[in-house]
Parts: sequence; C-alpha cells; structure tokens
Amino acid sequence: MKSRLFALVTMLFLGIATLSAQQNLWRKEPLKSPEIHADMSVTIRLYAPNAESVTLVGDFVDNVAMVRNEEGVWEYTTAPLASELYCYWFNVDGIDHVNDPANSYVMRDVGSQMNYFIIPGERGDLYAAQNVPHGTMAKVWAEVSDGRERRMTIYTPAGYESGKGRYPVLYLLHGMGGDEDAWAATGRVAEIMDNLIAAGKAEPMIVVMTNGCTQHVSAPGFSHEGMWRPYMSGSMDGSFEAMFPSIVEWVDGHYRTKAKRAYRAIAGLSMGGFHSMQISKEYPTMFDYVGLYSAAIFRGKEGVATYDNLEEKLDRQFNEGMKLYWIAIGKDDFLYDENVRFRELLDSMGYPYTYRESEGGHVWRNWRIYLGEYAQMLFK
Amino acid sequence: MKSRLFALVTMLFLGIATLSAQQNLWRKEPLKSPEIHADMSVTIRLYAPNAESVTLVGDFVDNVAMVRNEEGVWEYTTAPLASELYCYWFNVDGIDHVNDPANSYVMRDVGSQMNYFIIPGERGDLYAAQNVPHGTMAKVWAEVSDGRERRMTIYTPAGYESGKGRYPVLYLLHGMGGDEDAWAATGRVAEIMDNLIAAGKAEPMIVVMTNGCTQHVSAPGFSHEGMWRPYMSGSMDGSFEAMFPSIVEWVDGHYRTKAKRAYRAIAGLSMGGFHSMQISKEYPTMFDYVGLYSAAIFRGKEGVATYDNLEEKLDRQFNEGMKLYWIAIGKDDFLYDENVRFRELLDSMGYPYTYRESEGGHVWRNWRIYLGEYAQMLFK
Repeated sequence: MKSRLFALVTMLFLGIATLSAQQNLWRKEPLKSPEIHADMSVTIRLYAPNAESVTLVGDFVDNVAMVRNEEGVWEYTTAPLASELYCYWFNVDGIDHVNDPANSYVMRDVGSQMNYFIIPGERGDLYAAQNVPHGTMAKVWAEVSDGRERRMTIYTPAGYESGKGRYPVLYLLHGMGGDEDAWAATGRVAEIMDNLIAAGKAEPMIVVMTNGCTQHVSAPGFSHEGMWRPYMSGSMDGSFEAMFPSIVEWVDGHYRTKAKRAYRAIAGLSMGGFHSMQISKEYPTMFDYVGLYSAAIFRGKEGVATYDNLEEKLDRQFNEGMKLYWIAIGKDDFLYDENVRFRELLDSMGYPYTYRESEGGHVWRNWRIYLGEYAQMLFK
Repeated sequence: MKSRLFALVTMLFLGIATLSAQQNLWRKEPLKSPEIHADMSVTIRLYAPNAESVTLVGDFVDNVAMVRNEEGVWEYTTAPLASELYCYWFNVDGIDHVNDPANSYVMRDVGSQMNYFIIPGERGDLYAAQNVPHGTMAKVWAEVSDGRERRMTIYTPAGYESGKGRYPVLYLLHGMGGDEDAWAATGRVAEIMDNLIAAGKAEPMIVVMTNGCTQHVSAPGFSHEGMWRPYMSGSMDGSFEAMFPSIVEWVDGHYRTKAKRAYRAIAGLSMGGFHSMQISKEYPTMFDYVGLYSAAIFRGKEGVATYDNLEEKLDRQFNEGMKLYWIAIGKDDFLYDENVRFRELLDSMGYPYTYRESEGGHVWRNWRIYLGEYAQMLFK
C-alpha cells in the first residue's frame, strides 16, 4: 500500500486537471456507483472480476442478484425510485456485508456501516443539505445526576450563535442499539431541521439528542469505555428516566432556552418512544409536546417503580394537560399490537392524542418521516 | 433484508441476555475482528467462505495474504505491534477495497472508508478517548469574506461551555482531498487535545479546523453542493489566503478567544502546511506560532500575486518576530526535498526555526504525531 499511495499522492500533486487520468490508474474501472439516472432509476455497480455471485441488499430491493459484465463489473439497475434516502450493501460469494467502495457515504446502524444515496424530490430534498442557513451540530459532554459526564449531540438552529434570543427545545431519543449519534447521522436531524426552519414550516428550535443506554456514557469509541462493537443494548430499568431532569437542567443552564413546558418537546423511536412516554408521565409538567414513534410501550423491566402505576401516572399527566400527544407507527411494525393496546387504554380513559399510521415497519425511513411531521407541529 | 431485520429486532427485544445467541443467528460466525492479543499482536478476520484469495492491506502490513480456515474464515495475525492507530481493508478476489464487516470503526480518507484500531500504550492512548474531561466538537457555519457560509469544525476544551474565560486558538488546516472533517476524524483532534490538556501538557485552547478547498463550502454531503465522491481537490490559488482574516474575525467574534497574536497559532499538513506558510507571511502580525507539517512549500499556482515576492514577505514576517516557526517532515516524504530547499532559504536569510525530522512519509500517522508535539509547545 505504501508505495501505491506514495505514487498516487505524488502524481496528484501534478495537478487536479489530470485527476480523471489518475483515477484510472488508481482504480482500473473509474466506477460510478450509485448512478442516479434522469428517470430516478439507479444503477449500482461493484468491480468484482472473480466473484461467482453478487447480490444487492437494501431497503429498496429484496436481496437481488447483480449481473456481471465483460469487464468484471457487477451491475443492478432499479426501476424508477420514489424520492427517499436509501441504504444498501452487497453480499459477495457468501461475505454477507460488503460496502460499496465507489460510494464514500456510509451511515452506521448499530454495528454495521451501510452505504446510502438520496433520490431528489420532496422527501429526499428534506434529507439532503440545501442552500439554506445551516444550524450547528455539536458533540457535548454534560455532567448529569449520576455524577458522570455523558455525551450528547446538540443541534442549534441557524442564527443561534450570532444572536441573543432564546429557543424552544426538542429532546429526541434513540432506540435500542442507538446512541447520541443515531439521530444525528441516520436520522438526518441537521438536514431536516435546517430545511423545515428555512421554509418556515418549523419554528427555530434546539434539538438535544441524548444517549439513553445508561450503561455507557457515550457512543462506542468516544469515551474511556473503549471501542466495543455496537450491539442492541438499551436501558429500560428506570435509570434514564431518573437522570432526565438533570439533563434538562444542564441544557437550560448552558443554552439560551425558553425553560418552560410550553417550549419543551420530547420524542423518541422504539425504546426512545418508551422513554418519551415514561419521562413525560414521570415529570408531567416538563413537556407540552410528546411524540412516540414506533414506541416499545410495554417493555419496561419488571419490578422497576418508575414503571408501576401507569394508569395513575397517565391520569396525572393528562390532567395537567398538554398541547400534543402524538403516536405514530407503521402498519407492519412488530410493535403495532402493543400500540393498539396503548391507544385503547388512552381511549378508555378519555385522553386526547393524535394518531398517525404509516406504511412500513420498524425502520429509520419511518422515523425520519415522523420527525419531519412532528417538528412542524411544535411550539406554534 | 426486511424480514431478516424484522426477526432480529423482534428477537432482540426479548432481552439483552440472549444477545450472543442472537448474534449467532445474525452472523453465522460471531467474528471478532480485529482481536488485539495480550502481546499486542492482532488477528484480523473475514468470513469469506467462497473466496479464492484474500489479502490484507494496511499501514502496518504490505498487502499480505490471509489464510482460510475450515469454517471459511480468513485470518492474519501480525507480530506484536507498537502502540499506534492503524488502518486497513481487504482485497478479496480482485475487489480492491473491502471493509471489515466485523469492525464498526471507519475513518474516511479522501474518498475511501478505512477500518481502524488502536494499540494501547503511550501513543495509542493519546489517540483514544480516556477518562478525562472532554471538550466539545462542533460543526459550525461561518460567513466569510467571499459572502458565502462555509463549514468548519471547532473544538472547545473542557470547561469552555461552563466557564467565562478566554482561550487561545490553534487554526489547523488539512491537505489536498481533505476538508473540515479530516483533522477531526482522521487527525484525532478531540482525543489528542483532551488527553494533552488533562495531563497538563498542553494549554487549554480552541482548535479551528477550516475547509481550505475554496471551490466548496463544506465537506461532501453537508452543503447544497451535493454528494460528490471526494477527490484530491485543493486550492493553491490565493483564494483561501484571501479569506483567512475573515475566518479569524468570525472566530474572534463568536468565541471567547484571546484575540492577539500571542494567543494564535496556525498549522497544517501538506497543502495545509503550504497555506500556513503563506497565510502567516501574508498577515505577519496574526500568529506567534506557525507549524508546517509535510508542507507542500513550492506548489502555489503560478501568476498568483499572493505567492509572489516570497523572500521579501518572509523578511517582513521574520522581522516582526514570532515565538515558534516549526517545520516537520518525514524522511521518506515525497516533499522532503522541497522542505530542504525551504530550510536552506531560511538558513541563508538567518531566520530562526525549529526542525523536526521523523521516520516515514506523507501519512496521517506522522501528522497526528506532529500535532501531539506541536500542541505542547503553544501558548506557554
């Protein structure tokens, strides 16, 4: 590698004009993958001259066989795709996860890196950076009530740093296997919020992305806990709920927030939806907006006091009143049935909520859609 | 994929205790790769049951053949490795860049994702997150003198957000093909600075990582310019030098800096070393510390006024005086000779500088080493 890299760097210093020629030296096939065509079909390519079988795995195909051309490039072209953000990888001769070396864009979901691309259009444009004012994304450390410094991702909207105004706050929680990086990367928070705010569809707000796996203080690799392989961890034992007020206190103490319930929202996906339900009922005067996305409603650890007396605590919360209690889930979500049960419970108590049922299952595609919709309903 | 993911998520909700059993379902071989042994040798593994040839490519091996075991796992075990951060990928049957699916850790260098691991010890520990107070890493947008908003990465040291003090600033510049993400990710800035500051070896400082490719306003994917494949771009046409004062002005206007030359340093690698040399001589009262890491000294575009009259401008700069002019390069660097020429020029004029010659070439390993050394010399 050393000599090849050395030669490459040397040659490239001769000038950018010769770049395409150098790319031919660097990679015999200057592959374009993915290639998005005018009709929004997409060709994905992999140079694998000696492979016997290459399949494409993704959230827009069901493990399809790719076809080898005479130069050793395997190709697959989709039908025209709807505007979306799509993820994929390859299976090559039984290696069950090969990333696309021609595509520099990856997002980590739990332990795996997935390549992605965006099909432009209404939804894809919401997930792509546009020519609008951009907010700041920061990785910060906050000491919370258990005495440990914990890492969070905080989005501040365009204008925050130059101005003096105070802003409402959305607390946005991840699911099992996630961490404070999940919403920021896979959830496209900066892009969604920048674009909605610039279009006047959402109020400028701070978005705080916490780490709800209390056994760790950060995403893997960013703390003294080391570089473990991310796994489907979670904490549904009351520990996250217990420290949440100190997180809110830290944010109110370090950012120019409007520190009142009318200007606080909470939402989360899966385990984060569970956390949002639990936290908002434990602290019934903390939030005026609650969002449960594909929430794991009834999954709390048994014997944990936080999770006892649900109906009594919901009663207290709904008697306090709030502006929005929003429940969203896909028709194919494996948590669909327990969300039906939860809505039946709310109905039986006469509590008002808004229900949003989408297509699809327990997937990031839905959680991005839900964030895009929920953010537009806040603080108005 | 959908049904497999669905089943996985469902099963995992049954509890974390069954995780290892689920991993066996998810990936037939619950591979550990890389595995760092007690003697600091490392075994790297890839499950590739039908491959005919798998080689390991990295900065610690020279494209070595891996060996297949009877379960279809290809393995390679290194000799004991010195403490360092190491990068690698695979070549599988002619596919020239396969990332390790068992290793979630990647860093992007220009257009390619490389897996990495860290061997503990003095140097590796400097590049790994430790149990010390952590600074903040933020992706911010600043309007600069060309009227465009441009993206930067800014590190603020632990205590900045909770305190009121003012801090010195290091401006840290990337090379060709880099961007505002390069030093932050591949350069391990947060880890190096957190660890040096906690050990009392470096002064608490703000580190500003700019984007020196002025044809773009951000790293790929973070602006309206879209998701191009990163390439060996650069700008050595005077445009970055011209906008630099407005960057410094923006930083001084938005952060609690000590806005004097005694509290400002600049350094950069390769093209960024060139930029550091040019900027510090164009604005001879801006910086008291200048660091050239593997600098591309004589590579400016011809006919650009910024690059004219080098000796006259150096004369002005050195007559103004500064605390440190630090030149570092590896013995095998392809820019070694022009750094010799530059030092001869400085010697002939009688200008004081400090020279650091290392092993190795034009590689990130050296640039991390140089940052670790340079940061300890600043603002004391």
